[in-house]
Amino acid sequence: MDYKAAFRNALDQVHSEGRYRVFADLKRYRGEFPKARWTRPDGSQTDVVVWCSNDYLGQGQNPIVTQAMHQAIDEAGSGSGGTRNISGTTCYHVALEKELADLHGKEAALLFTSGYVANEAALSTLTKILPGLIIFSDELNHASMIAGIRNGRCEYKVFRHNDLEHLEALLRDAPADAPKLVAFESVYSMDGDISDIAGTIALAKKYGALTYLDEVHAVGLYGRQGGGVAERDGVMDQIDIIEGTLGKAFGVMGGYIAADADIVDAIRSFASGFIFTTSLPPALSAGAAASVRWLREHNEVRVRHQERAATLKRRFAEAGLPVMPSVSHIVPVLVGDPVHCKMISDMLLADFGVYVQPINYPTVPRGTERLRFTPTPFHTDEMMDHLVGALDKLWSRCNVKRLGGYAA
Amino acid sequence: MDYKAAFRNALDQVHSEGRYRVFADLKRYRGEFPKARWTRPDGSQTDVVVWCSNDYLGQGQNPIVTQAMHQAIDEAGSGSGGTRNISGTTCYHVALEKELADLHGKEAALLFTSGYVANEAALSTLTKILPGLIIFSDELNHASMIAGIRNGRCEYKVFRHNDLEHLEALLRDAPADAPKLVAFESVYSMDGDISDIAGTIALAKKYGALTYLDEVHAVGLYGRQGGGVAERDGVMDQIDIIEGTLGKAFGVMGGYIAADADIVDAIRSFASGFIFTTSLPPALSAGAAASVRWLREHNEVRVRHQERAATLKRRFAEAGLPVMPSVSHIVPVLVGDPVHCKMISDMLLADFGVYVQPINYPTVPRGTERLRFTPTPFHTDEMMDHLVGALDKLWSRCNVKRLGGYAA
Repeated sequence: MDYKAAFRNALDQVHSEGRYRVFADLKRYRGEFPKARWTRPDGSQTDVVVWCSNDYLGQGQNPIVTQAMHQAIDEAGSGSGGTRNISGTTCYHVALEKELADLHGKEAALLFTSGYVANEAALSTLTKILPGLIIFSDELNHASMIAGIRNGRCEYKVFRHNDLEHLEALLRDAPADAPKLVAFESVYSMDGDISDIAGTIALAKKYGALTYLDEVHAVGLYGRQGGGVAERDGVMDQIDIIEGTLGKAFGVMGGYIAADADIVDAIRSFASGFIFTTSLPPALSAGAAASVRWLREHNEVRVRHQERAATLKRRFAEAGLPVMPSVSHIVPVLVGDPVHCKMISDMLLADFGVYVQPINYPTVPRGTERLRFTPTPFHTDEMMDHLVGALDKLWSRCNVKRLGGYAA
Repeated sequence: MDYKAAFRNALDQVHSEGRYRVFADLKRYRGEFPKARWTRPDGSQTDVVVWCSNDYLGQGQNPIVTQAMHQAIDEAGSGSGGTRNISGTTCYHVALEKELADLHGKEAALLFTSGYVANEAALSTLTKILPGLIIFSDELNHASMIAGIRNGRCEYKVFRHNDLEHLEALLRDAPADAPKLVAFESVYSMDGDISDIAGTIALAKKYGALTYLDEVHAVGLYGRQGGGVAERDGVMDQIDIIEGTLGKAFGVMGGYIAADADIVDAIRSFASGFIFTTSLPPALSAGAAASVRWLREHNEVRVRHQERAATLKRRFAEAGLPVMPSVSHIVPVLVGDPVHCKMISDMLLADFGVYVQPINYPTVPRGTERLRFTPTPFHTDEMMDHLVGALDKLWSRCNVKRLGGYAA
């Protein structure tokens, strides 16, 4: 067996499909977000504006958050030193779980090391706790939800994206007495569309299913206190399990679920990905708790965030750039070709100091390759002027399709 | 479907088996490790000595580590803001991966959000890159390795713990031209025994298998520079993939693999658990890099650590306490009954200010329930006096078996 050749072949395949990823080495400046210093592969450096961060509100530089982290390090040191059960539970973890339960109006919450692990561990564990469980999963659900569903090895049905008629048909077809769970997201992060949460809840109730809602691209961002789209829509209390992240709008790292105490306690007691892993460092727990608390009280940040996203969409449309029909803070612009997409991204970075990653297959379907912009409250009108000008030039230079047709 | 009853039943099952876990809320004092403040369920507090931390060397309070974390927070803020590919790669990640590759004498290293994720993602991805792969797995491998092997859905064979004859029999039975991988650990964390790495490598070579070595309970602790048992044994260059953690001896959080550049690059390009997750915060990457660098140059810490473990084993044996035959820094003491094990642990905490978790089934086989002590360089002779005295009293009070038989 020639292992070297096998690994080489796998890489050649990725290269040949134009999917080989080169990570941009970026250091953001605290206090000057969204600016960052980009280190080129040759070691030289230049300043850029980051347009694709999931630190949607700039909480990564909020002194409330960084101070809480500094303080926890000074008090308790760097790591937690163990799993949650073996010396790795601290007052910081306990306080954060309480804060998250409160944010979502649930009895309890449970921390995981990431949103990915939260989804994988919670969903795969639910299939153990509820033998015979059938999971109904939106076709565009995140890789971590799919991993949890597959690893749980239960029966599952995939319904067409946001298609409640299809979901109902599948629910109707399933045995009435089987345990069921509908797994879906609120904000789908690549298109920026938002699911019909109330409609999904109504179907779940009609057919006796639990609901599992991934709000990772919504917590901190929607609802009066940042509880997510379910809070905004007034249905947070009717979702059985809410899953969220501390690594996007809250600006730190980690994931969680919030639910009834018994549900949380059961997942806590059975989830391998929770039990057998070192817990979050005290500093991350303290920083995240401070971030959640602060964002609950600062709705004006969410208002400004939505205004920035709406403004960027309008500016793109006015320039004839093919902005996709997002109803959220995510602003995708269609390129429709992987080579052009990568090339425009590279030129934006090298020639215009604009950093936005190309989003290609398999993250999105072939033919829908795009640039995905995430304006934050800290992106100024001047930054937008520069961005729209740069895209306008490159769209002409590369002869990419605009709204209403190709450039002359 | 009565979901409430289903979750309640799952919990009742855990309770009835005596496996329900209550997490102790502990806050370690930076600068006074291994002391910590325990918050009782009723909210009252008392000081305890932590005897079961995986912060094996007390790096969680090393000013080299905490200062690096403070500095990275001041420079770059709290979180990374994205996946490694989408704005989440920083100079801190790049430097840490370089440091880890160098530590293990490999061409490259790849960071994951935890050791659990590193094992799960790397092993499940290898089965995608090497179609037809057969994994040979030690029966006591960690839950995260088992998760990776199962989720990869390849053929796998489990060999008896540290039994090279059995491993060879299984290798011999497999098709000669099939890709193969032997997955094992260096230090097994519940017994403290150490595998025959050179012997395993010899077998792997004889039968054309790759080797995958989990050194999470060894990195930082063994070898002249803390490269692990493979470094100590002079065979680090012959292991194909080394997996380690930043959350135990290095005192922070995160996991990694180190290997040839193509192997690392292929796993980087295909591993869902790597691709679709927010990267480690800059502060964790910076703290971990500082910790690795410092431990490479401070072998005296490892010498002191081994002396402390040897001393505690001797002290336990002299007191007739049934210390198990560990050859590592892990000091397990056999209780042999889950109820006694939990009771002694509870009394140690409540009456003696000694914190050590009971290790019960399913973490260890029934009948081998134990207390697992991890003395660090910061555990003093006086702390050992107190610990041995407390155990001696409780062994008599509970009439638990000693070395050579029951107490009179």
